Amino acid sequence: MNQHPQVKQQAPDDRRASGDVLRLADRLRARIGADKVLTDPAQLRTYECDGLAAYRVRPGVVVLAADRDDVVTTVRLCAEAAVPFVARGSGTGLSGGAMPVADGVLIVLSRLRRIVSVDPDNARVVVEPGVINLWVTREAAPHGQAYAPDPSSQQVCSIGGNIAENAGGAHCLKYGFTVNHVMGAEVVLPDGEVVHLGGTAPEHPGLDLLGAFVGSEGTLGVATRITLRTIQAPESVQTMLVGFHTVHDAAGTVSDIIASGILPAAIEMMDALAIEAAEAAVRCGYPPGAVAVLVIELDGPRVEVDEQFRQVRGIAEARHAFETRIARDDAERALMWKGRKSAFAAVGRISPAYYVQDGVIPRTRLPEILDEIGRLADEAQLRVANVFHAGDGNLHPLILFDDAAPGAMADAERLGFAILDACIDAGGSITGEHGVGFEKKSKMARQFTAEDLDTMQLVRCAFDPGGLANPGKLFPTPRLCGERPGARTAEDAPDPAFGEVF
Amino acid sequence: MNQHPQVKQQAPDDRRASGDVLRLADRLRARIGADKVLTDPAQLRTYECDGLAAYRVRPGVVVLAADRDDVVTTVRLCAEAAVPFVARGSGTGLSGGAMPVADGVLIVLSRLRRIVSVDPDNARVVVEPGVINLWVTREAAPHGQAYAPDPSSQQVCSIGGNIAENAGGAHCLKYGFTVNHVMGAEVVLPDGEVVHLGGTAPEHPGLDLLGAFVGSEGTLGVATRITLRTIQAPESVQTMLVGFHTVHDAAGTVSDIIASGILPAAIEMMDALAIEAAEAAVRCGYPPGAVAVLVIELDGPRVEVDEQFRQVRGIAEARHAFETRIARDDAERALMWKGRKSAFAAVGRISPAYYVQDGVIPRTRLPEILDEIGRLADEAQLRVANVFHAGDGNLHPLILFDDAAPGAMADAERLGFAILDACIDAGGSITGEHGVGFEKKSKMARQFTAEDLDTMQLVRCAFDPGGLANPGKLFPTPRLCGERPGARTAEDAPDPAFGEVF
Repeated sequence: MNQHPQVKQQAPDDRRASGDVLRLADRLRARIGADKVLTDPAQLRTYECDGLAAYRVRPGVVVLAADRDDVVTTVRLCAEAAVPFVARGSGTGLSGGAMPVADGVLIVLSRLRRIVSVDPDNARVVVEPGVINLWVTREAAPHGQAYAPDPSSQQVCSIGGNIAENAGGAHCLKYGFTVNHVMGAEVVLPDGEVVHLGGTAPEHPGLDLLGAFVGSEGTLGVATRITLRTIQAPESVQTMLVGFHTVHDAAGTVSDIIASGILPAAIEMMDALAIEAAEAAVRCGYPPGAVAVLVIELDGPRVEVDEQFRQVRGIAEARHAFETRIARDDAERALMWKGRKSAFAAVGRISPAYYVQDGVIPRTRLPEILDEIGRLADEAQLRVANVFHAGDGNLHPLILFDDAAPGAMADAERLGFAILDACIDAGGSITGEHGVGFEKKSKMARQFTAEDLDTMQLVRCAFDPGGLANPGKLFPTPRLCGERPGARTAEDAPDPAFGEVF
Repeated sequence: MNQHPQVKQQAPDDRRASGDVLRLADRLRARIGADKVLTDPAQLRTYECDGLAAYRVRPGVVVLAADRDDVVTTVRLCAEAAVPFVARGSGTGLSGGAMPVADGVLIVLSRLRRIVSVDPDNARVVVEPGVINLWVTREAAPHGQAYAPDPSSQQVCSIGGNIAENAGGAHCLKYGFTVNHVMGAEVVLPDGEVVHLGGTAPEHPGLDLLGAFVGSEGTLGVATRITLRTIQAPESVQTMLVGFHTVHDAAGTVSDIIASGILPAAIEMMDALAIEAAEAAVRCGYPPGAVAVLVIELDGPRVEVDEQFRQVRGIAEARHAFETRIARDDAERALMWKGRKSAFAAVGRISPAYYVQDGVIPRTRLPEILDEIGRLADEAQLRVANVFHAGDGNLHPLILFDDAAPGAMADAERLGFAILDACIDAGGSITGEHGVGFEKKSKMARQFTAEDLDTMQLVRCAFDPGGLANPGKLFPTPRLCGERPGARTAEDAPDPAFGEVF
C-alpha cells in the first residue's frame, strides 16, 4: 500500500530491547527454537508498522510462530513475564492494529498457512490464521463455492487479520462482513489457555463470544484455527457502469435500487477526482464527463440478473444517468473493476501523497455527507477524492496533500477526523472495515458513551486482566483492569503503552 | 403451548416470600407505584413458569414494568438488596429461560409495547421489548418490508424474549436467526446502568457485545429498546409439498437442493408419525402413503422462483419423490403450512402427552441421526414424531408418552437428552432455537469444554459479578464470580439458586 508515501524514514536505530524482553527472548529460543525468535534490530525493522505506515514502533522481539504450540508457548511466557504481545498476519491493515508495542513481542502468524480441511457438503473450510484470504476461494472454487468477504487486499491479506479487523469488501453489501462468515475459532487467550468459540453449526448455545472476538483487533487473544463458511458461487455475475452528472443523482440511485428490493452483490461509487485519478492510472474508459460513476454488480441465476439489470437501468435513468453500460465479457468487466480497485494507488498520479479514511453513514444520507466532505475539504484547502462502497454507506475519502509542505500530513489527518465526526453526527460510525486500531482510538470516546466503552473494557479485562494483548489499540485510554469503571475516559489521554511513535 | 399436559398442578401454596424480598417489594412500590408490584400468591401463580411448564417456581415479587425507568429502578434496587431478578416477555419460551427464581423478582416486560420508530428507507424498526414478533412485520408491511425471524409462536412471543433466546423459525434457513436482525439495543446492565450495544449501521467499531447479548438468555442484562433490521418482502412466495416413501430420500433431497446452489426460504420435514398427527388434527391433505414430506418454500422474483421450482422438482424426483405439488393459491399454501405448524399441538391427538426437544446436526447427517433417533426410541419403548427445519439441520423430536404411567415423563426426558447427546456426537449442538434455559443447562458441560465454559463465565461475571441476572440458567454450575476458573465444572452439580422446582 502506498498510503503514506510522505513518511520520512528515520536513521537506522540500533537500540536494543530492554533486559526483560531480551531475557524473555532467550526463554523463547530455548522453548520453540532459536530460528523462530528475532531480536536483531535490522531484522526487526521489517515489522515496525503495518499498512498504516505513518506510525512505526520497533518491537522488542519478533516470534515467527510455526504452529499453535508456538503461539501458546509465546503467549504463556509473555503472561509470566508480564510482557505485552501483538499478533500480526500479513500486515496489510490500515488502522495500525498490528503496530508493535515497544519492548513487547510481535507474534507473526504468516507461517500458520495450512488449509486444515475443505468440506463442501457442509460449506465449511477450516484454515490456520496465516492463510491468505483469496486461497479460501481457491480451495472452494472446484466445488462451485467461494469465500465471500473480499477486501481490496485479498490477494495478500490473511484470514487472521481479517478476523481481527472484521474485514469487509465490495461484496459485503450482499454477503455480509467477516463476522458473518466465521463459524468457529480456536483461540489462545491472553493467559495461554486454548478455547473454542463457536463451531460448525449456524447457531450455538451459550454466550456468543465468537461475535465479540471477531473485530476485537487482537485484544482478546490469538486465533490459531478458524472455521469459515463458504457460499455457493452464483450462476451468473454481471457488472454495469453508470455515469452521472451529479453525485446527488448517483447517491439517489443507490438508495432507489435498494428500496426497490434489489440487493446487488456490490454498488461502488467514485466521484470526479477519483475518476480522474483512475483514468490517468489505468485508462479504465469510464464515461467521459462523468462527475460520479457507479459500478453495480448483480449475481444470481442468469434470468434474474438480466431482469434486475433492466430495472436498475430504469432506476438510474430516472435519476438522469447519461450512460449505462453492461460489461459484454470478462475483459470489459475486469476493466470496470480495475478503475475502482486501482483508485487508491491511482491518486498517487495526481497528488504527491494521500491519506485514506474509512467511515460509515446511513445509506440515505450519502448526498448530505458528500456535501459536508466538500465543505470541510474547502475549509481545509485540501482536495478529497471519494471512493466508496455506496450500498453499505461505507465511505473511503482519499485526502490528497503535498508531503513536502510542512504540517500537511497533520492537516490531512485533521480533515480525516473531521469527516469521521460528520459520519458520527449523521448516525454512522468511525470505521466500516479498516478497524479502529491505533489510528482512531481517540475517536471511540466520540462514538460511544463512557458507559458503553466501560462495558467493552469489562469484557476486555475479563479476557485479559493484565492488559497484555495488543495494548494501546481500539480503546481510547488504557484503563487498568480493576480500576473503577468511568474513572478515566478522557479523550486523547496520554498512552503509556507506547514507547516511541515517530 | 400444550407441551407438558402431564404436569400435575400443585395444591395452592400460600407461602409468602421471605422478609428480604418483601422489604424490596415495599421499596419498589414507593418508587414505581404500588399497582406495578405484585406479591399476592394468587397473582404470582400466573408467572410460575414459561412454556416449559413442567418446571414451576413461584417468584417472590412480580414487577409489571411500564417503561425503561421502571426497569432501571427495579434492577438497581435488586442490585442494592442482592436479590436476583429474571426478565420475562410473553413467557412462551420452551427451555425455561424465563422461569422465576424463588424469592427473586420477576420483571415482566409485556407493557413495554411501543413501536418507537419505523424507518423504511434505512430498513429499521425500533421497538420496546414487549412488542410482539408479528407486529414488526405488520409495521413494515405497508413499506413492502418484513421482519424475517418467525418462530412458530410469532403471534404471541415478544421481541425481548426472541433476543434472549436468539429465536429462529422456519425462514431462518435463508434469512438467519434473530442475531442477524438485531442491529442495536439499549440494555439495563445488572447494576442498573444503561448502555447501548450496536447501533443502526451494519458494522460497528469496538467489541461486538451485541452478538454476545443476543442469546445470552437474560444473564447479561435486560434490553429495553431494540433496533431491528427489516428485509424487503419478496416479490413472489411459493410453496411446494413433496412426498417420499423413505426419510432417507427426503433427507437426501434436502442436501441435494442446498448443494445445487438453491437457497429456499424454508425446507421443513415431517416424518410418518408427525404426518399422521397433523392429518388427524387439521386434515392437511398430505400425500397419502408418505413416510416423509418436505414443505419447501421459495421466494424472490417470480421468474427465479419458477425456474428454481423446476430444478427442485427434478432433484426430488431423482430421490424417488412420488408426489410433488406446488400450491396453486394462498389457500393451498396455507393448508400446506397448517399441517406443519400444527404438528406440535396435533400430536396431542395421538398421544396423551408429549415432550419436545430441539437439537442441531450438520445437514448432511440427517439420515443417520434419524436412524439413531429411531434406535433410541425403540430402546426406550417410546414413539417419536419428527418435525424439523431440515435445511438448518434443526431437529424437533416430539416424544410421545402416557403421563398416566409412573415415571413416563422422566423416561421421555431421558430419551430427549439421549437424542441431544447424539446431536453433539454428530458434530451438532443441544439447541437450534429454543435456548438452553433451565432445561438443558446440564448438557452445556457435554457440549463445551471446561475452558470454553469458563470463558463464557468470565464474560458473565464481567457483566454481573453478583450473579443476580437470571441465575441458574444457561450455565451448568452457578460458579461464583471471582472463583478460580475451572474450580467447579462438574455436570449436574446441585444448584443452590433454585429454591423449589416441583
